[in-house]
Amino acid sequence: MSGATMDTCGKVIKCKAAVAWEANAPLCIEEIEVAPPKAHEIRIKISACGICRTDDFAFKGKINDLKFPLIGGHEATGIVESVGEGVTNIKPGDAVIPLFLPQCGECRCCLEPKSNVCYKSDVGKYTGMMMDNTSRFTCKGQMIHHFINTSTFTEYTVVDESCAVKIDEKAPLDKACLLGCGFSTGYGSAVNVAKVEPGSTCAVFGLGGVGLSTVIGCKVAGASKIIGVDINSDKFAKAKEMGATDCINPNDYTKPIHEVLAAMTEDGVNYAFECIGTTETMESALKSSHFGCGVTVLVGVAPSTAKLCIDPMLLLIGRTLKGALFGGWKSKDDIPKLICDMMANKFNLDGLVSHKLPFCEISKGFELLNKGEWYVINK
Amino acid sequence: MSGATMDTCGKVIKCKAAVAWEANAPLCIEEIEVAPPKAHEIRIKISACGICRTDDFAFKGKINDLKFPLIGGHEATGIVESVGEGVTNIKPGDAVIPLFLPQCGECRCCLEPKSNVCYKSDVGKYTGMMMDNTSRFTCKGQMIHHFINTSTFTEYTVVDESCAVKIDEKAPLDKACLLGCGFSTGYGSAVNVAKVEPGSTCAVFGLGGVGLSTVIGCKVAGASKIIGVDINSDKFAKAKEMGATDCINPNDYTKPIHEVLAAMTEDGVNYAFECIGTTETMESALKSSHFGCGVTVLVGVAPSTAKLCIDPMLLLIGRTLKGALFGGWKSKDDIPKLICDMMANKFNLDGLVSHKLPFCEISKGFELLNKGEWYVINK
Repeated sequence: MSGATMDTCGKVIKCKAAVAWEANAPLCIEEIEVAPPKAHEIRIKISACGICRTDDFAFKGKINDLKFPLIGGHEATGIVESVGEGVTNIKPGDAVIPLFLPQCGECRCCLEPKSNVCYKSDVGKYTGMMMDNTSRFTCKGQMIHHFINTSTFTEYTVVDESCAVKIDEKAPLDKACLLGCGFSTGYGSAVNVAKVEPGSTCAVFGLGGVGLSTVIGCKVAGASKIIGVDINSDKFAKAKEMGATDCINPNDYTKPIHEVLAAMTEDGVNYAFECIGTTETMESALKSSHFGCGVTVLVGVAPSTAKLCIDPMLLLIGRTLKGALFGGWKSKDDIPKLICDMMANKFNLDGLVSHKLPFCEISKGFELLNKGEWYVINK
Repeated sequence: MSGATMDTCGKVIKCKAAVAWEANAPLCIEEIEVAPPKAHEIRIKISACGICRTDDFAFKGKINDLKFPLIGGHEATGIVESVGEGVTNIKPGDAVIPLFLPQCGECRCCLEPKSNVCYKSDVGKYTGMMMDNTSRFTCKGQMIHHFINTSTFTEYTVVDESCAVKIDEKAPLDKACLLGCGFSTGYGSAVNVAKVEPGSTCAVFGLGGVGLSTVIGCKVAGASKIIGVDINSDKFAKAKEMGATDCINPNDYTKPIHEVLAAMTEDGVNYAFECIGTTETMESALKSSHFGCGVTVLVGVAPSTAKLCIDPMLLLIGRTLKGALFGGWKSKDDIPKLICDMMANKFNLDGLVSHKLPFCEISKGFELLNKGEWYVINK
């Protein structure tokens, strides 16, 4: 079970990682060196790792300020191999989920019940470094950057103690990794950010892994109508399996999709979710929500240069437009609860995993992601 | 007290009104004919009437689809002169506030606790007609349009029974008229839409009548810091009198005002209010709210052609952008409660009235409004 051994503790570990040497270049499986954890850091042996569209964005150079070379990946489970000085609440052998959204417990956001965007997060800053502004990765003598406090496309990674949470050791790690980003993001957008209510109507734009997780959230929250929207009708069977009551393809209609949705839902849904990341679908989602009470949640990440241009009257009349990273969950507080819910079968993640691939086939995983597969787990 | 007399009931009333014959033309004080109320309608003798920027927008042709000639005005108090067949809950002699946002009690919005945009509202449709698609106003043989279910720049008006609410007959009508739009909108944006919490930080962009009313709402809600923002520093003394703790003028700074506000409030306010109606200030308000938990409420009405263009990441990271007409209040349910609160001195509207003018000087009222006076009451 444990990745901790007397052989590795305190020493540099040589292992395999998928290195992105530059933007828009193929990932290279390389042998890298992973330095031991410094004070308040944790070195983790990765057990399973999902592939998320944000990783794809990163590798394609769509995130401004991101520094290469880097080791991507941020949705994983692992076993703690060793810990640095001062780490008291996590020990070698613990099952953990690395946190791209830390919870330091001390900053304004951590102290604010309504926020989960810890000031220690590297999202938006993209320093690519540990808290002391150095890296723990080297490859061929060159320093390699970390990625949003996690870097999980590697056999071993090092994270700050604020960036990992211990989970139930009996949790199935190959599924639990989805709680590190995609599932928690979609599910939380419904139950936590929108606070979907029993009997309400919902539209989910984009039926990838996050969209399907949002559908699951709407269903668990008791929505009476959950309408999946995607231009790939092949995704509809899976969406209905996850809880969608209807699925529509904008290409099947001549009128704008928000008008189709309005006709299906007495002038608009209570809750709309944009799980794609284009400004066109964000505007469609907003317009498809009811003018007097609709709430639209932005879930998908748009390219850095994107601008959402809307008629302010859409909002002034009574709509709400909001967003949240990671489904609004406070990562350290809430992931263990989500793990409990998963183990109690409050929701079932089996349908979200379309392929399991060995780590060395990670590039194939990205190909599958770009073909519209739901979730691809490397293991 | 009563405007009902045996002389007028059931007959056409000849009276004075300010007619806008076309967009961008001076208002003309004309003798008009006001037809008796039909079934489920109420004819009201106007007692006092505020001048609102939305009226100014309307007369300047900035509201698409608005039909001329029309009688504007929507923020008033009056005494019921007579009622049509089937009106049971309002009788001649009652003090009322006409409602530009009706509450029919039966539509999806009226049945939805979170919405107040009754389907009978003419806002956005601008038919300029009563519910039976006819007008009660004529002048010089020509039909004159109504304005958003109210039309109060006249000595007498006719409204649907869903568009008037009875208020305490002891309420001071010259102040109570402000509850028909401006005060309720600003105050409700703080206490009802944003739900400002004790100890929170707020920024109010625009210190006109609605902005000052928002300041009052923030103060009543217990905000610890209320920062007024306006390019006219002459408004600051009044804003502080109403409850602002600080006032800043963007023209006094070289850096963007959201950065100034961030420095004053640990990276951003909890609640930002845009009470002007320009997309530039909407974006500033959004950016001045805290990235992880800030809520921005759009209060000001932008011209119909305006587009708000924003980086969606501003929202995705954890902000909320929302709007509401009339402070989110359900008009028939909530105005009587606000009247009670006013009479119990929960808030004081005295400071909001800068001038009282006779009705025939209404054009001077608009001049004063455009000079930046707070509120101008015709009486």
